[in-house]
Amino acid sequence: MSITVVGSIAFDAVRTPSGERERMLGGAATHFALAASFFDTVHVVGPVGDDFGAGDLAALATRGTRTGDVERIAGGRTFFWRGVYGEDLNTRETLDTQLNVFAQFAPKLSAAARAAGVLFLANIQPALQARVLDACDSPRFVALDSMNLWIETARDALVDVIARIDCLIVNDGELRQLTGRASLLAAAREVLGWGPSLVVAKQGENGAALITRDGSFALPAYPVAHVVDPTGAGDTFAGGFVGYVARHLDALGDRDVLRNAMAYGTALASHNVEEFGTERVERLRAQEIHDRVAELAAMTRFEPPALELREGVAARGA
Amino acid sequence: MSITVVGSIAFDAVRTPSGERERMLGGAATHFALAASFFDTVHVVGPVGDDFGAGDLAALATRGTRTGDVERIAGGRTFFWRGVYGEDLNTRETLDTQLNVFAQFAPKLSAAARAAGVLFLANIQPALQARVLDACDSPRFVALDSMNLWIETARDALVDVIARIDCLIVNDGELRQLTGRASLLAAAREVLGWGPSLVVAKQGENGAALITRDGSFALPAYPVAHVVDPTGAGDTFAGGFVGYVARHLDALGDRDVLRNAMAYGTALASHNVEEFGTERVERLRAQEIHDRVAELAAMTRFEPPALELREGVAARGA
Repeated sequence: MSITVVGSIAFDAVRTPSGERERMLGGAATHFALAASFFDTVHVVGPVGDDFGAGDLAALATRGTRTGDVERIAGGRTFFWRGVYGEDLNTRETLDTQLNVFAQFAPKLSAAARAAGVLFLANIQPALQARVLDACDSPRFVALDSMNLWIETARDALVDVIARIDCLIVNDGELRQLTGRASLLAAAREVLGWGPSLVVAKQGENGAALITRDGSFALPAYPVAHVVDPTGAGDTFAGGFVGYVARHLDALGDRDVLRNAMAYGTALASHNVEEFGTERVERLRAQEIHDRVAELAAMTRFEPPALELREGVAARGA
Repeated sequence: MSITVVGSIAFDAVRTPSGERERMLGGAATHFALAASFFDTVHVVGPVGDDFGAGDLAALATRGTRTGDVERIAGGRTFFWRGVYGEDLNTRETLDTQLNVFAQFAPKLSAAARAAGVLFLANIQPALQARVLDACDSPRFVALDSMNLWIETARDALVDVIARIDCLIVNDGELRQLTGRASLLAAAREVLGWGPSLVVAKQGENGAALITRDGSFALPAYPVAHVVDPTGAGDTFAGGFVGYVARHLDALGDRDVLRNAMAYGTALASHNVEEFGTERVERLRAQEIHDRVAELAAMTRFEPPALELREGVAARGA
């Protein structure tokens, strides 16, 4: 079932404790597509400028991703982000954001992109996400990401579009901010009440949690000893998760399907952070992903024991 | 194999979004003992004041915990802590700390406490932890907790005592601070190089990770929809973990033993936060813990699939 992703295509300049890159391919749609392309045909929808070269487009087309909906704006420049990560890689500071061609982005989808069975609305303005959803034929599975900016400035529009999707994929802090609920579980249940059947909370180095009406599942991040660059890890996770779902649309009720979707997302995200930007996932092989998923399954499994415990309750009467 | 814990016994005053308590039984040794007492006989070593009543002592003695090493300082008052938790329960502010009898604490261990096969050095001054270790006969398993205060003011003494123990159990942020390493895995490996064979990183709402020389294991926190009071969750986790280890000292090489120790710690900690202070764990039943461990095993398990992925690497030559 082919997948359409609508979101940013960017050049990123980053500095991390491991080094720096002055201009690397980035953006939410890019990272998503590079991961999801392992699973099925991806249509990328997003604008670029004159500075977006044939090599960049070729990288985006890795594993058969269709770039016909990448809109080149004559005379424009590609979205640019510059950031620097702190020592612990959990904090980052934005030094520069140039929206460029992204400022006027009005998604236009080809017939093939509209017909995709799976749609990922990457982090863009909620009203645009809704417009894309209107334009699509009738996707069987729609997932959406967002961010604090839209929660603060366009919450009503965001809640409206969330009500129309199947799966919300956001950072755990954003999930709390969106719902005003302190616990992850309470926050996720609030969102499930709005319409979606799945909520995925990305927790960065702490992994990710999946909450449905039937229960919850959580997976730690794969432990990477030397994280080079976390940029795009969340979108790479989403690409693995949504890609896996796209291959199993008729079996989403099967418990292991959504858990394996989490595992493939986690495995892909862990590869993503091993090098700068898209460098690692651009040349990743399928077997490397499978191996990491198998490792994740092995490193999280345990058999509860037969064990006699002592009993007794506090005798506070004294 | 009986367990000795040395640490604080306290009265806590807390306010959380769920309510408040003006004076509840608390302290690291208290929370640890209430959890570890499910597994084996616990000897609690710590000072209290005249204000520590017979009912408090009876609560500490739940499930057979020996309180003969609880030292009552005539004319003194029990350690007191007052704090308030933020809306998301992940932040807390200390409003008042009165060390009281804890300020002059010089641990004196009875023969029975010295002879315990397992020792938990709760978060106290590293030099005192070393002195307790010197005083003990020859425990087969020693675990230790610490905090940012000692990392900042007594790091050398802390590193010295860590070199003599089997297992470090600290918050993930403290593990990073202690080692100056950004990634959890790199930080844990640094500590393994100092001497311990196990490092447990507590990650609060995100669960806990176990790192050994052979690999790593991580378990999410059990999802509690309504957290009432997180006070003591870390020490309760440690009590479950160390208690489980105490029952399986001859089988620590068995992969499932340490993983189940993590699961029992996680289950107990999840019960602890359901009510204020020690209220929940004081009257917890063994079956409730077993049930939660079984749930944790079920909610983290998945079977990797047979799945054909697409292949291809970026063609950047263009």
